Amino acid sequence: MILTVTLNTALDITYRVPSLAPHASHRVTDVAERPGGKGLNVARVLAALGHDTVVTGFAGGPCGAVLRDLLAPLPPVDALVPVAGRTRRTVAVVDAATGDTTQLNEPGPAITPEEWAAFLTTYAELLGGADAVALCGSLPPGIHVGAYAELIRRARAAGVPVLLDTSGEPLRRGIAARPDLVKPNADELARLTGSRDPLRAAHDARRRGAHTVVASLGPDGMLAAAPEGLWWAAPPATVRGNPTGAGDSAVAGLLSGLVEGLPWPQRLARAVALSAATVLAPAAGEFDVSTYEDLLPRVEVTTQATAA
Amino acid sequence: MILTVTLNTALDITYRVPSLAPHASHRVTDVAERPGGKGLNVARVLAALGHDTVVTGFAGGPCGAVLRDLLAPLPPVDALVPVAGRTRRTVAVVDAATGDTTQLNEPGPAITPEEWAAFLTTYAELLGGADAVALCGSLPPGIHVGAYAELIRRARAAGVPVLLDTSGEPLRRGIAARPDLVKPNADELARLTGSRDPLRAAHDARRRGAHTVVASLGPDGMLAAAPEGLWWAAPPATVRGNPTGAGDSAVAGLLSGLVEGLPWPQRLARAVALSAATVLAPAAGEFDVSTYEDLLPRVEVTTQATAA
Repeated sequence: MILTVTLNTALDITYRVPSLAPHASHRVTDVAERPGGKGLNVARVLAALGHDTVVTGFAGGPCGAVLRDLLAPLPPVDALVPVAGRTRRTVAVVDAATGDTTQLNEPGPAITPEEWAAFLTTYAELLGGADAVALCGSLPPGIHVGAYAELIRRARAAGVPVLLDTSGEPLRRGIAARPDLVKPNADELARLTGSRDPLRAAHDARRRGAHTVVASLGPDGMLAAAPEGLWWAAPPATVRGNPTGAGDSAVAGLLSGLVEGLPWPQRLARAVALSAATVLAPAAGEFDVSTYEDLLPRVEVTTQATAA
Repeated sequence: MILTVTLNTALDITYRVPSLAPHASHRVTDVAERPGGKGLNVARVLAALGHDTVVTGFAGGPCGAVLRDLLAPLPPVDALVPVAGRTRRTVAVVDAATGDTTQLNEPGPAITPEEWAAFLTTYAELLGGADAVALCGSLPPGIHVGAYAELIRRARAAGVPVLLDTSGEPLRRGIAARPDLVKPNADELARLTGSRDPLRAAHDARRRGAHTVVASLGPDGMLAAAPEGLWWAAPPATVRGNPTGAGDSAVAGLLSGLVEGLPWPQRLARAVALSAATVLAPAAGEFDVSTYEDLLPRVEVTTQATAA
């Protein structure tokens, strides 16, 4: 079983409007809702790849109830911890004329020390049956900034490989706790290390404690800096579409590859193909299996001579 | 008791963002929710004026449940009819930098013939105890376009004065059923009659069946064309602010004045002062009682010699 942790889950709402004009009134022509937050997206892709997945984190309030109702018929097992606060909404407004998306993200609910303690108990129980764990996304209010570092130490103590996908100070603190894998994008990596050179920045992030760094570089593909070497994977062509969820699909590719014991080139190829298939999918954050299968053998993976 | 009907209730959500930029991602800094739909707004203002009020219409789904929870502690009595569909949300995105609002309105739930029949039963019961009824806002899907005409005929048959505040074809059909009062704004009146001259258009609307027409003309105040004469009421000065809910406050002013048997000049003055106090209130759709009381004696009402 693969466990994904989403401390700041969200009810993701997508509105389609004919054309978005600031300060005007709009009739929403289509409304879609789905359980959201990065770890939930990762779990959905893992399930589509055939892996048993369990999702944990927090859910509360009316939107938390809707999120759990939407999650119930899906393959990932719901092990979310109830909280008194209200699970946030995110609203993606898609302009049908241009295809562009405007995003509005509510703040998450404040988590109490008792709720965090209840989560740690659930987390410890779930780690017992986990082959790997992914810690994903932002921290809600009330959670201390070193929370991911604490979860990484507990996973390592339980002998469970742990992937961290977050940003800012939680990433900086988390890396110091020596996770097996971090997957920053170019901006997150630059903010962490101060360097816009992905290779230099990935080496720096490894020196800070990450066992392996996989940097997602948008249309340029992905770079893996691992103890075993350095690899670069590029999609067969520039893919155009909605990048929402592409990073989460990449995490699912890396994590499934880790659990299956795939060599790095195959893990990276899977991550890049899943990511590209997500960008190409008509619905934000979804991925089309046949597109993925078509792209997978066409991802070009090169190894770099300058391995650390 | 004054009854207000809101067939297309909404959970009104207000987001505050530092600055709204299309196609960007925004952190919402403040989230507010309140029970919405024009008739609910009218009822809140009527309650603030000291009138017993009952609200009916439809509510369903998770947002309908939240709406009813928010309504429970407020003075208006909840007589909403449950439906299987989901009550819509409206999202008002307030740009903190400019104060401007971008509005996103979800479509309402489809109402079944059985639900409409259940509503008619509730409506008939409530009319038995009503001194006046206001029919407010748009029609949700599944409700026939002549629905307001049907509700007007039933109110007239029960001897209950009826005010209609809607637009488009439901307004056109409703007027033909001879409501006691309609309150179109300048745009709605122009769409109905083809004339941008408020006086001419109001007379036309009366010829189409409305006993009295009160046209709300934004900063120019209000015009009443009644069998008793013609009156014009203007706010003491141009008021700047958020016009959301100003029309609903005006309806509450007119309806309370009708029930209290006030002469037309006083009714109009109350409607204009409430409307202006709503524009001036910091929170959209609210009104400040002391601002209202300050404005009321300063509203200028003139009678026009050309009474019909």
